[in-house]
Amino acid sequence: MSTVVNANNPDPVVVGVDFGTLSGRAVVVRVRDGAELGTAVHAYPHAVLTDRLPAAPDGPGLPPDTALQVPEDYREVLRRAVPAALADAGTDPRRVIGIGTDFTACTVMPTTADGTPLCELPGLAGRPHAYPKLWRHHAAQPEADEINALAEERGEPWLSRYGGRISAEWELAKGLQVLREDPAVYARTDRWIEAADWIVWQLCGRETRNACTAGYKGVHQDGRWPSRGYLAALDPRFAGFAEEKIAHPLSRLGGRAGGLSARAAARTGLPEGIAVAVGNVDAHVTAAAADTVRPGEMLAVMGTSTCHVMNADPAEGPPAEVPGMCGVVHGGITPGLWGYEAGQSGVGDLFAWCADHFGGALEEEARAAGTSVHDLLSARAARRPVGAHGLVALDWHSGNRSVLVDHDLSGVIAGLTLATRPEDVYRALVEATAFGARTITDAFEGAGVPVRGFTVAGGLKRNPFVMQVYADVLGRPLHIADSDQGPALGSAIHAAVAAGAYPDITEAAAAMGGRTRDAVRPDPGRSAAYDRLYAVYTELHDHFGRGGSAALHRLRALRNEALAAG
Amino acid sequence: MSTVVNANNPDPVVVGVDFGTLSGRAVVVRVRDGAELGTAVHAYPHAVLTDRLPAAPDGPGLPPDTALQVPEDYREVLRRAVPAALADAGTDPRRVIGIGTDFTACTVMPTTADGTPLCELPGLAGRPHAYPKLWRHHAAQPEADEINALAEERGEPWLSRYGGRISAEWELAKGLQVLREDPAVYARTDRWIEAADWIVWQLCGRETRNACTAGYKGVHQDGRWPSRGYLAALDPRFAGFAEEKIAHPLSRLGGRAGGLSARAAARTGLPEGIAVAVGNVDAHVTAAAADTVRPGEMLAVMGTSTCHVMNADPAEGPPAEVPGMCGVVHGGITPGLWGYEAGQSGVGDLFAWCADHFGGALEEEARAAGTSVHDLLSARAARRPVGAHGLVALDWHSGNRSVLVDHDLSGVIAGLTLATRPEDVYRALVEATAFGARTITDAFEGAGVPVRGFTVAGGLKRNPFVMQVYADVLGRPLHIADSDQGPALGSAIHAAVAAGAYPDITEAAAAMGGRTRDAVRPDPGRSAAYDRLYAVYTELHDHFGRGGSAALHRLRALRNEALAAG
Repeated sequence: MSTVVNANNPDPVVVGVDFGTLSGRAVVVRVRDGAELGTAVHAYPHAVLTDRLPAAPDGPGLPPDTALQVPEDYREVLRRAVPAALADAGTDPRRVIGIGTDFTACTVMPTTADGTPLCELPGLAGRPHAYPKLWRHHAAQPEADEINALAEERGEPWLSRYGGRISAEWELAKGLQVLREDPAVYARTDRWIEAADWIVWQLCGRETRNACTAGYKGVHQDGRWPSRGYLAALDPRFAGFAEEKIAHPLSRLGGRAGGLSARAAARTGLPEGIAVAVGNVDAHVTAAAADTVRPGEMLAVMGTSTCHVMNADPAEGPPAEVPGMCGVVHGGITPGLWGYEAGQSGVGDLFAWCADHFGGALEEEARAAGTSVHDLLSARAARRPVGAHGLVALDWHSGNRSVLVDHDLSGVIAGLTLATRPEDVYRALVEATAFGARTITDAFEGAGVPVRGFTVAGGLKRNPFVMQVYADVLGRPLHIADSDQGPALGSAIHAAVAAGAYPDITEAAAAMGGRTRDAVRPDPGRSAAYDRLYAVYTELHDHFGRGGSAALHRLRALRNEALAAG
Repeated sequence: MSTVVNANNPDPVVVGVDFGTLSGRAVVVRVRDGAELGTAVHAYPHAVLTDRLPAAPDGPGLPPDTALQVPEDYREVLRRAVPAALADAGTDPRRVIGIGTDFTACTVMPTTADGTPLCELPGLAGRPHAYPKLWRHHAAQPEADEINALAEERGEPWLSRYGGRISAEWELAKGLQVLREDPAVYARTDRWIEAADWIVWQLCGRETRNACTAGYKGVHQDGRWPSRGYLAALDPRFAGFAEEKIAHPLSRLGGRAGGLSARAAARTGLPEGIAVAVGNVDAHVTAAAADTVRPGEMLAVMGTSTCHVMNADPAEGPPAEVPGMCGVVHGGITPGLWGYEAGQSGVGDLFAWCADHFGGALEEEARAAGTSVHDLLSARAARRPVGAHGLVALDWHSGNRSVLVDHDLSGVIAGLTLATRPEDVYRALVEATAFGARTITDAFEGAGVPVRGFTVAGGLKRNPFVMQVYADVLGRPLHIADSDQGPALGSAIHAAVAAGAYPDITEAAAAMGGRTRDAVRPDPGRSAAYDRLYAVYTELHDHFGRGGSAALHRLRALRNEALAAG
């Protein structure tokens, strides 16, 4: 730390900014120990555009599954939340030696060669395809289906790095949608860039591309983007998409993208020239905050859904083809290591669904007890021995990301009787997501990628009932990330590395990040009982998910037909 | 009617009394057209004994699954409800020419040779096994398991007449339980008699045994009860059970058991000597009320559970072995015909479960709208096209009676998403019970027993949403029984036959019973859509119910272990 600690700045700090779905959060962090000194949140004034463009409030409605954002909202976070976090910390801005950012992904936008979003150009404010497409913009599914079918047909080498299927959320599908639906906007797109990289461009005045989104969302593997031939086969006009609009030298995570520009310094109140870290993704950067960047340390970021990230050492072998993983990217989490990502589409969402729609009978009791339906359901569910509810559920209400990669699946509950109560269903859903997590760790280990530890970050880490079920089901102790603002802290840690305060992310994470080891221990008796329930889960999982029965697909098809006819 | 209509009694009436689980209902019915002139209900003062005996309020608790009743409560119905019904009708008792009764079954009791219930003998009021065992007394399951295993091993000829398995509710299992647990009470039992026959004994002063309960509950087939050798193999002390305690000439339904005794006349206020009809069972006697006694007319008595009864003509062949039927008994519904019975363990119970425990979020809205959660769920569920909820359920929350005869099964709901609402689950459960009914009619037809019509009686006939789903799922029109007090009206019709007002039940039912034909017609479009959903139901039904998966049995075993350990 000798170069950054000096008489003028004996106790330097860094700023991390986490750009979420609806707001941005800035946090001021002390470099020497990761102490979080102050924080501030700023909500995006335009939130998510799903119905109308602000430039055309009376114009035609946006198509279904559209989800756009407004770039100026992101700049607004820099102007508001960063100074507010400094004020909250009571910190002199001159102590700040670096800033790091993370973003939702794949959130991607078209810009000119100088980084100006197309939607800010005269005449384009009324064109939906000129706006950033938020990660959850799902209108490019037809394009994704085409992309996958053609890649499989041609045996594209990158497909196996994504569990055999890439997502409608990613750069290719969204880019192809723009070409198909608004060729003029596509033609004016000089750069098709992740918001994660665009915000860094705003800070340091030069384009960079981070290794994380390029790999997980841009399908960059082994030094190459998808080939010109493949892209031309998708659409002749799409042939140059990679070469012309996304190709760029990649920057390693924790690297210095540049110095803070005068303009960005004025915007944020931070000193000009301080280190700006290379961009990153919220879940992946949390690995630094939880100090889980060493090989084999799986981090589960558990909220409405769960994202699993884990490093593996290339010295232990080439990347494994883990069935149904979201992706494996070299340097995708930490430079030099293979970064694996897997996911569960619905986790906290399922618990909320149960509490909101099927826990109504407990509302009055919860109100009288001054608690929430959630907490009442958790407390009641926790009281009973494993298996006493007689239930097992499949946690596929939002489809299955890993390990089946099938979004046309749906949830199942088996074992219902007239004695089944809402807390029983609630518990069965919590258990089902834990069984889903175990299915993922089993898939990694089955593919030869050892999972040496399991750490939890995200909002659900605060629910002791859920945590205990996970420890018992996984049959291993849970480590719990210490910070409640993991992504922002992780970004700050990357900023400290970019500023030269630590030699690499691993050392920075050890000093500034943290987790409580063995925070929740499994109970051997309950674990043994869960082994038997997990066997039933696996039987149903494989029957409904691996071709034993087409029932769920048939139900989905009947539903879609009925809704289309209605 | 010449012999019963005369100048002194130009417009005769009959009385029907239905002995239910918690109360008895008397109805006064005009002989010429079945008009219901008056009615009265009397609740049993002791209801169902499950915890303590009235004679020993501080004594030891009754064992789990015990359900007893008090015979004096039944007599009380004769003393109270019969005169009250006459008063309600404003009818001169001298117009009454007969009385008929029906009972829950198998509700069975030990008596002395003169019909005195053992529990009324000095010194036996504190002995649980001296009391009538209500139909839902389920404590004789171990005995039933023994009975079935031995019958299968020995190839007892009667077993196939009961779908391959007899119930813990029936005479044999309950009798064996008495022998095993209280041999002294067993030794003092001269007669082991259905309450259906005991109440007739109370009315006319002589023992009779009706063909219905003897067949369906007493395992009487082809003129014989189970053999001495079989019973001795169960337990040497049980060898004489049939010969000594239940054997008796059988009386055909609609027959005259005797004349009303002076004592019973004093009790009821009815004329001494009027016809007392042979005893009967609630569901079976309702076939007369609904005028569905002709071969091939299936009657579904739909309430918390559903009982299906249907006659077949012996001229069309020997009784078929319909998979999973509850029984086929010669003269079991109407003399001269084979009477089939099948059942669904949970129907209205399932809808109530959904509304009570999972519909709570609608309680306030229902209250504000002045309606019930049930009605709100029905109204919302009815609005959507078939299949739009994307769900299919298995209606096995109380196990499956027909066609699987497996009470260790449990319910399943498949196709859940975050968009699933309580009304969707409610509708899926209604549909599941309709699919269950269709599985039963398919089983009959598959076994060569044609189902020519489907008539509904019981409380659920008043729910238009449920009725429409059944018509659409079955793909046939529903006929709806006219009377809201089917069993009591049916008993009155049997009384009219016993009194000689009609030559047989068929003619009496045609004159006095009734149904609205084609009251609910299927919609061809919805029926076609349900054919596709039914195919998914059948796939799950067979997978979970016929050995494709042991998941539900494993869940039940884990539950039972967990509860036993807890």
